[in-house]
Amino acid sequence: MAAIKLKNISTRAPKRYNKEKTKTKTEEILHELDDLQNLLFAEGKHAVLVVMQGMDASGKDGVIRDVFGELNPQGVTVKSFKVPTEEEMAHDFLWRVHAAAPRKGVIQIFNRSHYEDILVTRVHKWCDDETAKKRMKAINDFESLLTQHNNTHILKFYLHISPEEQQQRLNERIHDPAKMWKYNEKDFEEAKHWDIYMKMYEDCFAHCNAIPWHIIPSDQNWYKEYLIASALHSTLKQLNMQYPGLKK
Amino acid sequence: MAAIKLKNISTRAPKRYNKEKTKTKTEEILHELDDLQNLLFAEGKHAVLVVMQGMDASGKDGVIRDVFGELNPQGVTVKSFKVPTEEEMAHDFLWRVHAAAPRKGVIQIFNRSHYEDILVTRVHKWCDDETAKKRMKAINDFESLLTQHNNTHILKFYLHISPEEQQQRLNERIHDPAKMWKYNEKDFEEAKHWDIYMKMYEDCFAHCNAIPWHIIPSDQNWYKEYLIASALHSTLKQLNMQYPGLKK
Repeated sequence: MAAIKLKNISTRAPKRYNKEKTKTKTEEILHELDDLQNLLFAEGKHAVLVVMQGMDASGKDGVIRDVFGELNPQGVTVKSFKVPTEEEMAHDFLWRVHAAAPRKGVIQIFNRSHYEDILVTRVHKWCDDETAKKRMKAINDFESLLTQHNNTHILKFYLHISPEEQQQRLNERIHDPAKMWKYNEKDFEEAKHWDIYMKMYEDCFAHCNAIPWHIIPSDQNWYKEYLIASALHSTLKQLNMQYPGLKK
Repeated sequence: MAAIKLKNISTRAPKRYNKEKTKTKTEEILHELDDLQNLLFAEGKHAVLVVMQGMDASGKDGVIRDVFGELNPQGVTVKSFKVPTEEEMAHDFLWRVHAAAPRKGVIQIFNRSHYEDILVTRVHKWCDDETAKKRMKAINDFESLLTQHNNTHILKFYLHISPEEQQQRLNERIHDPAKMWKYNEKDFEEAKHWDIYMKMYEDCFAHCNAIPWHIIPSDQNWYKEYLIASALHSTLKQLNMQYPGLKK
């Protein structure tokens, strides 16, 4: 597989996609997803883990609300990974992640994830290259554990936006009353590290690809939502799940 | 390394060991261990995981009480692994194990462990050979994660008793009022699988040996306690720990 170069991947929908038609399509997919998720829950044989990564303002929270928010919250849970607590820091970096792994029957969404341990940490040099390499190995082993020993289907999304789009969205947080609560002046500082972030993401795609990454052009929310709903739909569809019938 | 053949290893102390002298020695070691454990806690840079495996009545509870019971309970915790709950069964087999991994500064004792997932489960054919092989790989990855990413020092003990000694101890549980609470008629049924248990243990020693097993001759408690206290002592001693001084 050729290495992923983010600069060479568009952050926008291909021209052939029409916004309104795509939105209608997404609604149809979401409708079917609702049934599939119910089946996943009822059957209880598979687990689904959705890893959501992306730069600040790439639209992670939006996907969670607009795509996963359509599903039954009884079978869909979200874990947001923030700065580790003192207790978390006193354990290996996957300890808190493993604790949040989905049980069979549910879709667990990671809003940021174990990948931050080889992204933000490397950008700020809290994690050196040698440690990063070891962490990548541990991440691959961990994802293999979930896959092989709990029928966990892992979907990894990178929400791909342009730096220009990011700046515009961060600025909206200053002016739009509905978005001000998300404003954090540090985000502008962080945005200055754009190029090194891209490099670290590319390194992560290159070394943690046993379960492939979905690079999602995300400058337009309607296209991003369509792609993510579609990916989840086709994953669930392929499981050939059955309602279990009456318990014996 | 030659494969471990349990039949060829004595379950008793070599003749040169004198019971009273050894007990005195163990007391001295425990006294030093108390200081070392305090240092481990104060320094907070290393974690210790003690995995205690062995057949029924091999003396796991006894070691925990008589060796680890001498140490400060603030820095020594015990997790006993029983039949998995419904919630645990809905996750990969290492989920509940990882959750109980020690934080830095403490000694965590596993009374039985993730190894049961390739022992009792194989004896009763709940786990086939192919699954067992995958689990062994996952166990090795997991132990490597704890070792490499949280400075965890793992000590794995197999309490080696003879089947005759086991029968005697199980019978004592019927007649000794202080031991009756441990009596479980199923233990006698389980004991009939002795040979297949030995085979599964040997297979586990052969494939999960990146962190070596300590085979502890355990027919005599005084010798077993001496060996385990010694192993823990030398592990802690090698860490060259330092009291951290005043916080800056």
